[in-house]
Amino acid sequence: MSSFLPESIQKVIDEFSRLPGIGPKSAQRIAMHLLHSPDMRISQLSKSIAETKEGLNFCVDCFNISESEKCKICLDQSRNKNLFCVVEEILDVIALEKTGQFKGNYHVLHGVLSPVDGIGPNQLKINELKVRIENLINQSVSSEDIEVIIATNPSLEGETTALYLTKILKPLGIKITRIGRGLPAGGDLDYADDVTLTRALQGRLEYS
Amino acid sequence: MSSFLPESIQKVIDEFSRLPGIGPKSAQRIAMHLLHSPDMRISQLSKSIAETKEGLNFCVDCFNISESEKCKICLDQSRNKNLFCVVEEILDVIALEKTGQFKGNYHVLHGVLSPVDGIGPNQLKINELKVRIENLINQSVSSEDIEVIIATNPSLEGETTALYLTKILKPLGIKITRIGRGLPAGGDLDYADDVTLTRALQGRLEYS
Repeated sequence: MSSFLPESIQKVIDEFSRLPGIGPKSAQRIAMHLLHSPDMRISQLSKSIAETKEGLNFCVDCFNISESEKCKICLDQSRNKNLFCVVEEILDVIALEKTGQFKGNYHVLHGVLSPVDGIGPNQLKINELKVRIENLINQSVSSEDIEVIIATNPSLEGETTALYLTKILKPLGIKITRIGRGLPAGGDLDYADDVTLTRALQGRLEYS
Repeated sequence: MSSFLPESIQKVIDEFSRLPGIGPKSAQRIAMHLLHSPDMRISQLSKSIAETKEGLNFCVDCFNISESEKCKICLDQSRNKNLFCVVEEILDVIALEKTGQFKGNYHVLHGVLSPVDGIGPNQLKINELKVRIENLINQSVSSEDIEVIIATNPSLEGETTALYLTKILKPLGIKITRIGRGLPAGGDLDYADDVTLTRALQGRLEYS
């Protein structure tokens, strides 16, 4: 593109452009920022990236990111072991944990069903979820005491995955719920789309 | 924030959040992307960052980024040595070079006059520009043959810097021009602000 740019700068621009959410212009700006940054900051950034995955793996229970065999959330004995929140990605766990409102355990699917992209149930951690719940029941936990909240995104793929999960989990006799859908906080009713409004009406709650 | 996150992940999120244009959410998304990336890609990114500044310096003439004492543009003998384009940042050189329309030389100020931020003429490469032109004149180039295009941004600071530059350069008897201002390509006249419209009227060109 800009043939006058030194190779090292062009390389760092190319590398940053490959990251999600960073376009070529942002990558250029970041490269110029690095050029004006002290060496210490550059080496810290470089080092932190190199060490991203060091000593990390996915939790054997919930497939969240973890430094040990099981993640901190699964190891936390104060959390409700019979309550599961099923999410698509680790980012969703971060978002839910930030609310501080959920005191159960998670299960990260690592994706959604998407036939177009060739992603079927076997590419996701769906069977692992079923096994997890079966193990609980085998440990003589009553299936009525187990709840699975399906918190996949309210997208086409997310809803399809949610439907598929209910089909798989229903025979276990457990309680299955879908995370509430409706107007987002700060949203404007007259700007909301039809699907959102329909879901908001269906998901209405009585004042107690 | 998310105390369950492994330290290495939190660190890489923090480091990315410090870069321009990357918020905490984007940094999280990038960290998760790295987590799912092959080791080779991670080490390439890390390495390219570490080597950003390696062997680089600013061109002694125009203060563009360079691998040698003088940058590729200044060394290019096919370019007009009596035509200068004065810009704020190296990014501006990249943008202008992409058009392929400018065949002169650049001069990078590395900022704009901004009394609020304590940036005066001595913090910028303004005197270096004056010396550059004086040297040309001393080499018996007629001052009438020298043109300086001031291409600082059409912002308050950019305009102030442009005015200051004209004051400094006027006594040299050279031609000083300001980069054209007006409606941007694809812009909508009825959405343009008053200043842009005024500049567009002032900057009108006759059909030839």
